[in-house]
Amino acid sequence: MVDVGNLTVGVLGGTGAQGKGLAIRWAQAGLRVLLGSRSAERAEQVAQEVAEVSGGSVRGCDNARCASEADVALVALPWEAHAETLRGLRAELSGKIVIDCVNPLGFDGKGPYALEVEEGSAAQQAEALLPDSRVTAAFHHVSAVTLADTSVSHVDLDVLVLGDDREATDLVRALADVIPGVRGVYGGRLRNAHQVEALTANVIAINRRYKAHAGIRVTDV
Amino acid sequence: MVDVGNLTVGVLGGTGAQGKGLAIRWAQAGLRVLLGSRSAERAEQVAQEVAEVSGGSVRGCDNARCASEADVALVALPWEAHAETLRGLRAELSGKIVIDCVNPLGFDGKGPYALEVEEGSAAQQAEALLPDSRVTAAFHHVSAVTLADTSVSHVDLDVLVLGDDREATDLVRALADVIPGVRGVYGGRLRNAHQVEALTANVIAINRRYKAHAGIRVTDV
Repeated sequence: MVDVGNLTVGVLGGTGAQGKGLAIRWAQAGLRVLLGSRSAERAEQVAQEVAEVSGGSVRGCDNARCASEADVALVALPWEAHAETLRGLRAELSGKIVIDCVNPLGFDGKGPYALEVEEGSAAQQAEALLPDSRVTAAFHHVSAVTLADTSVSHVDLDVLVLGDDREATDLVRALADVIPGVRGVYGGRLRNAHQVEALTANVIAINRRYKAHAGIRVTDV
Repeated sequence: MVDVGNLTVGVLGGTGAQGKGLAIRWAQAGLRVLLGSRSAERAEQVAQEVAEVSGGSVRGCDNARCASEADVALVALPWEAHAETLRGLRAELSGKIVIDCVNPLGFDGKGPYALEVEEGSAAQQAEALLPDSRVTAAFHHVSAVTLADTSVSHVDLDVLVLGDDREATDLVRALADVIPGVRGVYGGRLRNAHQVEALTANVIAINRRYKAHAGIRVTDV
């Protein structure tokens, strides 16, 4: 088992629902969490809120400082800001493990659908823009609502962790394992990230049909 | 619940591993199964084998007759033969529910990966070639090995069923439910089939890493 207890996890785009939800759970587990946002002021506000909900150690700052001070960084940016923001953080994220959880999705009258991404996936775009980082992809299907609801003491799903660097995917799996109920499962190489991101459209369709907060479990593992 | 007990299920490409595995389970459940293949002779051989293993009603014939006599048809063709074979079966499959389970995958030194499909997915290619049929997509992640092993009395996975026609997806879900342990879950519209097909690359990567026959379950549903 990888020990992640001493890590500072940076959450880029940490004021969004997904980043905030994961920040709450990591802070609850005793990790130091650094919330990044375009606006340091907004990040500090949300960090205070997350600290109160989680009872943990949470600070807020701008994305550059977040990337610079973090040991490992979660990319939870809106897809629209993904490329531009990461392009500016190459130096700050150099040598670090980066976790991309972004789902490039569109919505129309027929519901959600996967957007085409030139690089293949959000994770591969991150890899192209951060050639000095160790890019992984994970935490795509976790319901932000469930994460933020601290009365849910067992989050019933597996997190698929993708990447080409075994040490990196093992560490990210351990970051999934600290959330009660959650299990990190290796899910393939980064070139197979698109379908995991895109599957979020199906998860949303399932949620609508069944009025659920669906998750994915892997059987026989 | 939809009653599928009186249906004749045709399996196009029924001599391949996936088609044969599902044929065994459906025949065990008491459905009439018709195995189709390019070669009627080969189909008859495999049908006899499936009948013996399952103790059920199984016949073999060429793909055209299979499509013509079936009430509902599973497309379990090799991806290489998918477009050409379906193009020739438009009339035979007219008005029928068609289930596409084909995963367009490539393999290289780094393992499995998803192929690009001009129409978006195998299922959408089927929809384009069979405009008079009710095309759904399902049964992508079921291990052929597990299906064929009749000592496995509980197949531990959910089958995601995709399609735009509620009556059709409900019937296909019922065809999943007849396999012990399996549950059919609505998984979104047909335009979101690509990622479900492509996810089979991840399932194979998981199988290799964990030496498993992995399946997918949907939680909170």
